[in-house]
Amino acid sequence: MDDLIQRLEGLLGSGGVLVGADVQARSAGIWRDDHLVAGAVVRPRNTEEVAAILALCHEHRQPVVTHGGLTGLVHGADAGPEELVLSTERMTAIEDIDPVDRTARVQAGVPLAALQDAVAEHDLIFPLDLGARGSCRIGGNLATNAGGNRVVRFGMTRENTLGVEAVLADGTVIPALNRMVKNNSGFDLKHWFIGTEGTLGVITRAVLRLREAPRSRVSALLALDSFEAVTRLLKHLDAGLGGGLSAFEVMWDAFYDVVARPPVRENPPLPTGHPFYVLCEAMGGDPEGDAARFETVLARALEDGLAADAVLADTEARQADLWRLRDSVEALFTFGPYQIFDVSLAIGDMPAYVARVEESVAAISSAARLFTFGHLGDGNLHFCVAPGAGDADTVLAVERAVYEPLAAIGGGVSAEHGIGLEKKRWLDLSRSPAEIDLMQRMRTALDPRARWSEPDDTTGRTT
Amino acid sequence: MDDLIQRLEGLLGSGGVLVGADVQARSAGIWRDDHLVAGAVVRPRNTEEVAAILALCHEHRQPVVTHGGLTGLVHGADAGPEELVLSTERMTAIEDIDPVDRTARVQAGVPLAALQDAVAEHDLIFPLDLGARGSCRIGGNLATNAGGNRVVRFGMTRENTLGVEAVLADGTVIPALNRMVKNNSGFDLKHWFIGTEGTLGVITRAVLRLREAPRSRVSALLALDSFEAVTRLLKHLDAGLGGGLSAFEVMWDAFYDVVARPPVRENPPLPTGHPFYVLCEAMGGDPEGDAARFETVLARALEDGLAADAVLADTEARQADLWRLRDSVEALFTFGPYQIFDVSLAIGDMPAYVARVEESVAAISSAARLFTFGHLGDGNLHFCVAPGAGDADTVLAVERAVYEPLAAIGGGVSAEHGIGLEKKRWLDLSRSPAEIDLMQRMRTALDPRARWSEPDDTTGRTT
Repeated sequence: MDDLIQRLEGLLGSGGVLVGADVQARSAGIWRDDHLVAGAVVRPRNTEEVAAILALCHEHRQPVVTHGGLTGLVHGADAGPEELVLSTERMTAIEDIDPVDRTARVQAGVPLAALQDAVAEHDLIFPLDLGARGSCRIGGNLATNAGGNRVVRFGMTRENTLGVEAVLADGTVIPALNRMVKNNSGFDLKHWFIGTEGTLGVITRAVLRLREAPRSRVSALLALDSFEAVTRLLKHLDAGLGGGLSAFEVMWDAFYDVVARPPVRENPPLPTGHPFYVLCEAMGGDPEGDAARFETVLARALEDGLAADAVLADTEARQADLWRLRDSVEALFTFGPYQIFDVSLAIGDMPAYVARVEESVAAISSAARLFTFGHLGDGNLHFCVAPGAGDADTVLAVERAVYEPLAAIGGGVSAEHGIGLEKKRWLDLSRSPAEIDLMQRMRTALDPRARWSEPDDTTGRTT
Repeated sequence: MDDLIQRLEGLLGSGGVLVGADVQARSAGIWRDDHLVAGAVVRPRNTEEVAAILALCHEHRQPVVTHGGLTGLVHGADAGPEELVLSTERMTAIEDIDPVDRTARVQAGVPLAALQDAVAEHDLIFPLDLGARGSCRIGGNLATNAGGNRVVRFGMTRENTLGVEAVLADGTVIPALNRMVKNNSGFDLKHWFIGTEGTLGVITRAVLRLREAPRSRVSALLALDSFEAVTRLLKHLDAGLGGGLSAFEVMWDAFYDVVARPPVRENPPLPTGHPFYVLCEAMGGDPEGDAARFETVLARALEDGLAADAVLADTEARQADLWRLRDSVEALFTFGPYQIFDVSLAIGDMPAYVARVEESVAAISSAARLFTFGHLGDGNLHFCVAPGAGDADTVLAVERAVYEPLAAIGGGVSAEHGIGLEKKRWLDLSRSPAEIDLMQRMRTALDPRARWSEPDDTTGRTT
């Protein structure tokens, strides 16, 4: 590897390649205590440098792992000591913002929040939003097809992306930087790179679709007494707000019980004790009328018995206060060793599935705690499980409890976090042998030198 | 081929295979005078039969062309006398409509209008809508990633599809029938088949995303005096309607002049003579308040000088009357031999591009007529050109005038119609050699027996 590092240093100049203590000084990522492991970290500044790095690594048969902001939760960026990390941290140019076409062209290393701030100056938004916004980078959002709270209205990262430039393992640049909403001129190659977690190429630049900034925002918290009421409320709000609904977050009672009471907050905004709480949001174009319209739709939900209780927030401060509930996920990390899950399934399957997971987790340990929440409108549930122990057997038993029931109901072992290394062993619960074989054929077609590692093998993910 | 046809007849039974006069009795498609050409038409009833047909054809190295409703406009379904047509016309089952998850699972041969009608019974819509709705089939909509009038709000067919089942050339079934809005469990394989025009596989079933039916619909026609006003109006409506804008169609004056006056209609709804006319639509959830809100936003557009004149329609009948303007495209076919175009480009590039096309077309013949219209919010323009002659040289000269300027501005030679055979020779104006090479590698990976034909070769598109 030393010869390769020397050649990379020649290519990238001073500061372009980190080794030894400079690598170890870095964190392995968000919510983790371990430090970064890699043979070296290379830091290109542009597409040409990425292409040169990958061509060189291809020639040396050197595996490469791409890094964005390291906010992923599935060990998708973990590298071994013999692997090379390619970091996009110096590729932070916002190259163009076009307010007429409502597009932004950016380098892959732009932090999401930096883009959000830049487009706000043009009264535009990039609708993707997630808790890690300050650290995550657009390239990582694209590689994992990131989701977040506003998918119910605007879709995932994929739906907000018009074009992508990517570099294949051998250094070939694929300049698919389309900037039109409609373009059926041949295969839409961006989808070959979005959501494939770096296995088919390294995303270097993208053209993103922007929207007009909303002129109003209203949020509400509702308490509900049955799951059926939750599903009816979603339809009621979606129809009644006519395109305005921008978030529909559900918290099961155990989750709400932690985040709505001391020590997390003084008083719950709605009394505890209901089985479900929904935090919803509407964004619109009419600052004068939108809050009243939202209130009318909510009042009808109360009249019709869909909701048992509700509180509406139309000031920024009161909305921030409500959203703090949903964003207090870290308060769940205080019940001992914990595991976080991200799955998707049909909404209609949720009650039976959640009951089964609760039962299985209780069977692992009577002291286990299970917190359920999620983006219900997208079929996306999260669990935080604190089973009372963190040994490998317990971890595996909990994973089994969460993932295995998904196979029979066509659920997904990953809704928005990706597969990474953590979920490789579970992928075949969600995908058929024919689909996995097709993924492998795609990968080999793009990189004949690729090795498709076994589920538990943590090396050799990319050339 | 006779041996193969015999085996196919054995497989599909009576009525499963058409040959000879039964093939010739059929039309080649919408807006065409010629009859169908094919060695035979096979009519499977389900995925298993499609898989068996393709496996057999693969074994016999028999090229296959898939047919949906034959409403495509780019000769994407044309077959030679030695090719086999696989028609989805007997695969018309709407297998499931789920009003809670808001999904529909359908076979590929379901006509779009049949699906629209079926979901309407559940107060839901499938947002895709286009003029050919009565004849086009979902499989064709998917294979071409169809667009239409409501893309500005709901996206193309791709964005309204959750999962796809497809059969590869060798008969392998890829059951990627995901039904969740969020699912990042491995590559999202549906995008390998959507918009690839049957070159990577035959789509047999799909899970489509439905939306709550709108409770209000309002349309308006506006007259504008500059292109800059058109772009400002789009932003004004989009921001002011806060998610409600569902169509934004622009007609240049020459188009309006034909469709708004005799013999097409008695009186124009707005006076002729303005350079641009915009037909827009909003759909919302509040039947009492939405028309008033739309009117307020329109009034501001008039006050601010964005629009010179406007007429609002809030009854079904008056809206249908306005939309008849946009749907009178066939009135343009009366000026002699005509050519229809579908391109996309950045909105900001449109004035200079349209001026250049007008100039080039005028240079071909001083008697040439050019009509410009399109889905401006999506970057999608259509032209109908009547150059006064229909000989091959003229046709080619007009194509050159429309397509060649797109290369320098990153435009697309197809926005929503696809490439088919008609645009193969122009694809390299929109896509780089690296992209086209990647498409070819994909195709070969999925079908090692595929031949990638030369642009002007009309045979051998699929195995």
